[in-house]
Amino acid sequence: MNGAESLVRTLVAGGVDVCFTNPGTSEMHFVAALDRVEGMRCVLGLFEGVVTGAADGYYRMKGTPASTLLHLGPGLANGLANLHNAKKANSGVVNIVGQHATYHIDYNAPLTSDIEGLARPMSSWVRTSPDAKSVAADGAAAIAAARGAQIATLILPADTAWNDADGVAQVPDENQRAGYSAQAVEQAAKLIRNGGASTLLLITGGALTEHGLDLAGRIAGKTGCKVMTPTSNPRMARGRGRFSVDRIPYVVDQAIPILKEFKNIVLIEAGEPVAFFAYPNKPSLLKPEGCEVHRMTSGSENSVAALEALAGALQAKAADRQPQKLVELAKPTGALTHASIAQAIATAIPENAIVVDESVTTGRAFFPPTAAAAPHDWLQNMGGSIGFSTPVATGAAIACPDRKVICMVGDGSAMYTLQSLWTQAREGLNVVTIVFANRIYQILRGEFDHVGAGAPGQRAQDMLKLDRPTLDFVAMAKGMGVPARAVDNADDFNKALAEAVAEPGPRLIEVQM
Amino acid sequence: MNGAESLVRTLVAGGVDVCFTNPGTSEMHFVAALDRVEGMRCVLGLFEGVVTGAADGYYRMKGTPASTLLHLGPGLANGLANLHNAKKANSGVVNIVGQHATYHIDYNAPLTSDIEGLARPMSSWVRTSPDAKSVAADGAAAIAAARGAQIATLILPADTAWNDADGVAQVPDENQRAGYSAQAVEQAAKLIRNGGASTLLLITGGALTEHGLDLAGRIAGKTGCKVMTPTSNPRMARGRGRFSVDRIPYVVDQAIPILKEFKNIVLIEAGEPVAFFAYPNKPSLLKPEGCEVHRMTSGSENSVAALEALAGALQAKAADRQPQKLVELAKPTGALTHASIAQAIATAIPENAIVVDESVTTGRAFFPPTAAAAPHDWLQNMGGSIGFSTPVATGAAIACPDRKVICMVGDGSAMYTLQSLWTQAREGLNVVTIVFANRIYQILRGEFDHVGAGAPGQRAQDMLKLDRPTLDFVAMAKGMGVPARAVDNADDFNKALAEAVAEPGPRLIEVQM
Repeated sequence: MNGAESLVRTLVAGGVDVCFTNPGTSEMHFVAALDRVEGMRCVLGLFEGVVTGAADGYYRMKGTPASTLLHLGPGLANGLANLHNAKKANSGVVNIVGQHATYHIDYNAPLTSDIEGLARPMSSWVRTSPDAKSVAADGAAAIAAARGAQIATLILPADTAWNDADGVAQVPDENQRAGYSAQAVEQAAKLIRNGGASTLLLITGGALTEHGLDLAGRIAGKTGCKVMTPTSNPRMARGRGRFSVDRIPYVVDQAIPILKEFKNIVLIEAGEPVAFFAYPNKPSLLKPEGCEVHRMTSGSENSVAALEALAGALQAKAADRQPQKLVELAKPTGALTHASIAQAIATAIPENAIVVDESVTTGRAFFPPTAAAAPHDWLQNMGGSIGFSTPVATGAAIACPDRKVICMVGDGSAMYTLQSLWTQAREGLNVVTIVFANRIYQILRGEFDHVGAGAPGQRAQDMLKLDRPTLDFVAMAKGMGVPARAVDNADDFNKALAEAVAEPGPRLIEVQM
Repeated sequence: MNGAESLVRTLVAGGVDVCFTNPGTSEMHFVAALDRVEGMRCVLGLFEGVVTGAADGYYRMKGTPASTLLHLGPGLANGLANLHNAKKANSGVVNIVGQHATYHIDYNAPLTSDIEGLARPMSSWVRTSPDAKSVAADGAAAIAAARGAQIATLILPADTAWNDADGVAQVPDENQRAGYSAQAVEQAAKLIRNGGASTLLLITGGALTEHGLDLAGRIAGKTGCKVMTPTSNPRMARGRGRFSVDRIPYVVDQAIPILKEFKNIVLIEAGEPVAFFAYPNKPSLLKPEGCEVHRMTSGSENSVAALEALAGALQAKAADRQPQKLVELAKPTGALTHASIAQAIATAIPENAIVVDESVTTGRAFFPPTAAAAPHDWLQNMGGSIGFSTPVATGAAIACPDRKVICMVGDGSAMYTLQSLWTQAREGLNVVTIVFANRIYQILRGEFDHVGAGAPGQRAQDMLKLDRPTLDFVAMAKGMGVPARAVDNADDFNKALAEAVAEPGPRLIEVQM
């Protein structure tokens, strides 16, 4: 057994049985090993940003890591932006990055680069295997790191792949999700008891399961405290019957008045609320002056168990959860507006769907109506690097073949990693991609104002607008094997959504606004 | 004047008057400054790999750097692969990368990352401006570095863009291309005189102008020494009337027998010949044992002047250059084969064209016939990171609006940075993209053998083949505003090429093999 085979066998034995790949020469022995090892599902992407984003989506839905196979420094570089997003989402990923043979690196052949240097900014764990006999153990250590919600990057010189190895390695049993601090829960209980409505429970991460949210709902009902989430969350259980929570608005001028009322913030995995960007004469920290912040759990702790304990300490029971007033749903008719688009989507989301949200400005009003939609999971971009959604939708669909994935994306964002569509077609994935074609980086038009840059003239507008030439997403989707249609009114959008949700395999809808 | 405006004015004053952009919030003040400053041409790309590759192509044709505008760490990350290629081509680029405001970085907002850490592996010059008053001088230093054929990355915290600056800075007058070492030339002359046919002149970089090649041709004619180039070269003058030079083959088993005859290699900007990849039981160094290597010029020296001196020392005159036997050109008919494709392209290349070559396996036979084509420049991938050609063609067309660009690319490679087509349509660039659709990463099929991985089984083949589903490049091109057609025989290919070359603006031809 050579090093590559010892790694593939170690991955499969360690439960990492999906590999998103865009291989090159240095990775050919890994590819060859696939023929000899049962149980590894390989999914080819045409661009590395698809590969790494898919691994993020897979982890968010499955809770266990997938692997990626990338070609030397530049292949890793192409995948870094979505590894950044994955890292900020606390997703675990095992990256296998090929490298020149150990003895070839010094010759500075064209593809030579500082792979470890490239890996470090977006990885928590980086290692280069020194020889074939180390590859299996290094792979097992990478799996352990990824199980612990880290981006692990294992660099594999070609000779470590083709030389003889000893065999399979077992994954060390570390990095288990810890419990929680009883003291931190007790302190939170005290703050909530004393603070009531002036206390904010800011929750994210593992707390946003149906049960975690229900516990938060009970606590809010019992004590009067408020529950919110950050602007973006890796995954949130939403829809009818679930406790619906508002997010802190992206726009600083909207966030500050909402947070003004709080004297205490209890953090459950969340960070302290900060502005996404800095703006001249606006604060970076969004909490009011004098507001105290208390951390109850971090991302490595068991937040649902901590919420159980907190509900217990506060004697909050199921009956304490107050009924919420939800937006009424009706299929919209007439023109496509942000509101009618939101209604159309809310009525179309099927039971148990996975919604991947990169709708940017078009989607700012999607949250209230979709709270009344059929139960679903909602995935957001945690790192702010666009080109996130179509790969994440691809990986989520691989993780959950029995669930429908609804991928909502702005036209600007869609163009970064549109190659995802080909992988979706190839694998027959149940992904409905909805592209909001407003023909502009609309968020930047807003940010132009927010940073105090004045009114954009012709040359500045040229850097924001996407209308020359018009992008035809229907043609591009068909070019990659995905059936697609464009709609320009609510009735057609309803129909297109219903069709796309009903049919198996990928579909794309271009929403012309 | 704020920091952003001081930078834009410094760039324009320093002759950096083209900016390839994919901006975000942190770069809005730079974008706003474009309205106030005359003379900066901004070219929008839908993906950062387009932006950085275009800057590479621009430098190769213009000889002076363009700038790029990129959005924080992930925006830079998306551009790194083509910066890698640019770095290996000794292209100068001024990257402007936005960063959070200095005081906002510590809050770890979603887009926060180690930008300097990301920049370093693919940049020779990296600096973060500490305040608005430093931005102009830092920009001028970046220009100086880029003029010296370096990748310069200037990181601009948002507050350094919006705070008050002092004004424009002048570019320090450094990094001029040096002369050459008379001693190294003398030594080369001695080796060539003594060695004759057993001496190889291995030339690349600045030596590959029409005149530089002519000088090499005279020297070869006079002394019997052989002239070759590395497998890949940043830019080479080629076609009728020019001295045609063979390249060292990519395939190790083809390169070794060719180099076996040499006792001395004189390097003119080239590196010592090494294999692109290492393979089991094959050498990394391609020269025969005992072969001596002598460096005559490096990339920072004036190789044409050195060749003049060398020709002088060897008394090689214009009349010494021997006539070369060139392949006869005729428009092919019948089936599309590698040979007929090569003939079709060689007959279609228009006078003074720029050929960007990422044709990979399909193009291995293109060199001999195109030596007889109309005079043109030939640009190749120096870093081996695929997704190189369509961006480089875009930048070359911006640099040389009066020349036709022929971009030849494999289907696998085309899918990395296909967004280039939209920029070509938007700017009305004279680029003919020819996609060789063989529906496979054919080079990997070959490498699978070369690394001794045996015969690929079904699962391995699945990682190499692109035939499921079939990519429709005509549809994708139309989706981005570029007229396109597919051809499956030589006669149609001839016609499509003639039409595409005759018409202004971008065109795409899918060659179905």
